[in-house]
Amino acid sequence: MGLTPLDAFGYPPLFMPLIVQKYGGTSVGSIARIRAVAEQVMACQRDGNRVAVVLSAMGDSTDRLIDLARELSPRPAPRELDALLATGEMVSTALLAMALIDLGCPARSYNALQLPVETTPAHGRARISRISAGPLGADLEAGVIPVLTGFQGRAPDGSLTTIGRGGSDTSAVALAVALGADECQILTDVDGVYTADPRVVRDARRLEQVSFEEMLELAGQGSRVLHLRSVEFAARYGVKLRVLSSFRRGPGTLICKEDPDVEAPVVSGIAFNRDEAEITVEGLPDRPGIAHRLLQPVAAAGLEIDMIVVNAPRDGWVDFTFTVHRNDFEQACSLIGPVAGELGAVVSGSDRVAKLAVVGSGMRSHAGVATRVFEALGSAGINVRLVSTSEIKISVLVAEEELERAARTLHAAFRLEVSPAP
Amino acid sequence: MGLTPLDAFGYPPLFMPLIVQKYGGTSVGSIARIRAVAEQVMACQRDGNRVAVVLSAMGDSTDRLIDLARELSPRPAPRELDALLATGEMVSTALLAMALIDLGCPARSYNALQLPVETTPAHGRARISRISAGPLGADLEAGVIPVLTGFQGRAPDGSLTTIGRGGSDTSAVALAVALGADECQILTDVDGVYTADPRVVRDARRLEQVSFEEMLELAGQGSRVLHLRSVEFAARYGVKLRVLSSFRRGPGTLICKEDPDVEAPVVSGIAFNRDEAEITVEGLPDRPGIAHRLLQPVAAAGLEIDMIVVNAPRDGWVDFTFTVHRNDFEQACSLIGPVAGELGAVVSGSDRVAKLAVVGSGMRSHAGVATRVFEALGSAGINVRLVSTSEIKISVLVAEEELERAARTLHAAFRLEVSPAP
Repeated sequence: MGLTPLDAFGYPPLFMPLIVQKYGGTSVGSIARIRAVAEQVMACQRDGNRVAVVLSAMGDSTDRLIDLARELSPRPAPRELDALLATGEMVSTALLAMALIDLGCPARSYNALQLPVETTPAHGRARISRISAGPLGADLEAGVIPVLTGFQGRAPDGSLTTIGRGGSDTSAVALAVALGADECQILTDVDGVYTADPRVVRDARRLEQVSFEEMLELAGQGSRVLHLRSVEFAARYGVKLRVLSSFRRGPGTLICKEDPDVEAPVVSGIAFNRDEAEITVEGLPDRPGIAHRLLQPVAAAGLEIDMIVVNAPRDGWVDFTFTVHRNDFEQACSLIGPVAGELGAVVSGSDRVAKLAVVGSGMRSHAGVATRVFEALGSAGINVRLVSTSEIKISVLVAEEELERAARTLHAAFRLEVSPAP
Repeated sequence: MGLTPLDAFGYPPLFMPLIVQKYGGTSVGSIARIRAVAEQVMACQRDGNRVAVVLSAMGDSTDRLIDLARELSPRPAPRELDALLATGEMVSTALLAMALIDLGCPARSYNALQLPVETTPAHGRARISRISAGPLGADLEAGVIPVLTGFQGRAPDGSLTTIGRGGSDTSAVALAVALGADECQILTDVDGVYTADPRVVRDARRLEQVSFEEMLELAGQGSRVLHLRSVEFAARYGVKLRVLSSFRRGPGTLICKEDPDVEAPVVSGIAFNRDEAEITVEGLPDRPGIAHRLLQPVAAAGLEIDMIVVNAPRDGWVDFTFTVHRNDFEQACSLIGPVAGELGAVVSGSDRVAKLAVVGSGMRSHAGVATRVFEALGSAGINVRLVSTSEIKISVLVAEEELERAARTLHAAFRLEVSPAP
C-alpha cells in the first residue's frame, strides 16, 4: 500500500471520500482483535477512502481502572479519575497505530491533549466544545491513518476530562464534524439496527436506513447500539452515521436525515427495556401542585422519572403512577412514602415491569397506530399498565414476564419482518 | 492540614524550602504502597516544606506494556511505543494525587504534555530540553502538591517521548532545576549510597555525603542507585540530590558539589559489576592503526567497549585486551575473529570476569592508591587481569568467582567501614 493511495479514477486523496470509523471496547478487546481492526481499517482505505479512526479502551480496561481508583478512595477525586481513565484509550490507540504500521500502513495515534479535543470542565460528564483537527488533515492527505482516543477531552485549564460512558461514539461524530467527513461509521458487535432485538424476536430484520429521530427513540428505549448523545450530535450537524459490524463485512444501517420525498415507514422498529420500575400512589386529593409535591423529593435526589400518568379524578381523588430506573426503585419508594403518608395516600409498586416502544417517523401522518398496538396486545391477552405517546413513538408498560411475547406480537402486528415496498 | 501551611516561624509558603521528591516503581507498586507514599509526601510537607512529586510507573507495569507491544509487533513503531509506555506514569500520578486528596491534602497530577516537559524527538531515548513549570508554581503557592509523570516528555511535534529506562530520576532533577528547588530527593528501596554493596560487604557503611563525580563513577560501575544521566544533570545545574528510603525515614546520602575547604576522603566507595567480558588478541604486528582496524567493526556494530589495554611491544608484536558487556561477548568475538585472522593473530576471551572500581575524589592528591589496591589483592592471592585508572577511580578486572572476596579485601584495606574523622 502506497503512502497516498489514489481512488479508482486516479484522483489524489483530497478528492477521496473521508470516513471516520469508531471501534468499541469489545472490538479492540485483545491483541488479536486489534490486529483484525487494523486489517478492517486498511480494507476501508483500499476501497478508495481516506480513513480516520476513533477508539474506546480495550475490553474491560476502563472498569479495571475504576476498580483501582475505588480501592484507593470510595469517592475518587473527579479530576484525577478522569486523568486515570483517559489512559485506557491512550493504550488502545497506540496499539492500533502500532498494528497498522506493522502491517505496512502509516498511522499516528493522538490523545485528546494532542489535538486538542476541547470540552467543558465537568469531569466525568464533559461535553465536547471543539476539536482542532488540524494535524489530522495533513495525515489524511499523506495517506497516514490518524487514530484518536475516544471518550476523553481537555478542559479549558488543560486537565483531562471524560465525556461519560459510551462517549466514544460522540467523539467519533465530533471528529467527523471537525473533518467534514462523508460518513461516520460506528463499528460494533452487531451488524446494524434491527426492527427489534433479534435475540427476542427471531424474524427481526436489519434496517437499511433509519432517521435520526427514530434512532433517538430506539436508543432511548434501550436499544443500546449507539450512544444517545452521538445521535443528537450527528443530527444537529447533519453527519451521516452508519452502524456496522466489526466482525464481518456488510452494509449495516445508515442513520441520516429523513428524506422528505420518501414516505417514511409507519413503524420502523420496536425497542424495549427491562430496567423499569413502576410506583403508584393511590388516593391523592385532587389539588393543584400535588404532583410537584409528590415528585419533588425524588427529583431532588437526582433520580430520573420516565413515564408519568395521572388518571381522571374520581370524587375529588386521583391516582398517580410513574416509572423510574429499576435500580432507583427502593430509594424512590422511601422518598415518596412520607409525602404520601402526609396526604393520606397509599404507595404501591413493582420492579418487575418492562417498557416497549413502537417507533416510526411515518406515525406522524398515520392515525390508528395506538389502536393497532392495543388491539394486538389485547388479542394476545397482554395487559397494558401504562401508556405514553410522542410524535413518533408509543410506549407501553407491561409485566416483565409478558415482555418478550409482547415484542413478538407487536413485531408481527406491524409486519416488520417484511421490508417495506420501495 | 490547611491549604497554605506556614513554616515553623510562621512564614508563608514562598519562603519555605522547596523539595522535589521522586518515587520509583517499587515505591508505588501497589495501592497500599501508593497510600504510604502519600503519607510520606504529607510528612515532608508537615516538616515545613513545599513539595512537588515525580513518579515512575507502578511496579512492573512498563514491562507489561512492552510485552503487549511485542505481542503485536516484533519491532513496535517507536513513536507509538512511547505513547503506550507514557500511560504507565499517567496511571501512577493520577492514583497518587487521588490518594493525597483522599487523605485531605490538595494535589494535582500532570503529564508531560500538560506542562509540557519538552524533549528532543528521539523516541525511547529523548533528552529533556526544557520544563515549563509555570502551573506548578501556582499549585505550590497554594499548598497544592503537584504530581508529575517521570520518564516522559513531549517532542517538538507534540508526540509523547520517553527518556530511557531509569529516566524518572532525570525528570525529577530537571523539575528541580525548573522550579529552583532546594533539594531533589530520590526515594528508593535503599536508604542511601554505601561504601560497597551491603549484600556483598557486610560492614559496608552508608555515606552521609558523596560528590557528583564520585557518584558518577559509582553509578557508572554498576551501583544502580541512581540513573547516571540524572547525576550529570544535577551536577551541571548544581541541584542538591539526596538518596533516601521510601520505606523508612532517615537522612540518606546527599550528593552535591565537592566543598573545596573540606579534604575529600581518599576512597569513598567500591563499586562492582558482573556484566563484563574480556577479549584478548595475541600476536598482532606492532603497526600504527592496528587498534583502530581491530576495534572498528565492533564499534560500527554499536557495541560499547569499556577498558582497553595494549601491552608493551615485544619483538615487533603486541597483545591487545578489551572488555565489552557480557551480552555482547559472542557478537564481539565473531566480529574480531576475521580481522585477527587476516593479521595472523589469535583471539581468546572470557565472559566470566568482573570489574571492581575504587572511587574517591581525594585520590587526586594522594599517590599510592593503586599500589595499595595491588598490594591488598596480591596478599589475598587475587589475580588482577586488567587495570584502568581515571582521576578519581582505579578499576581492576578479576575472575568472576574472585569478585566478592576482592570487594571485601579492598573495603577492609581502605578501612571503609569506619567513618572518616571529621
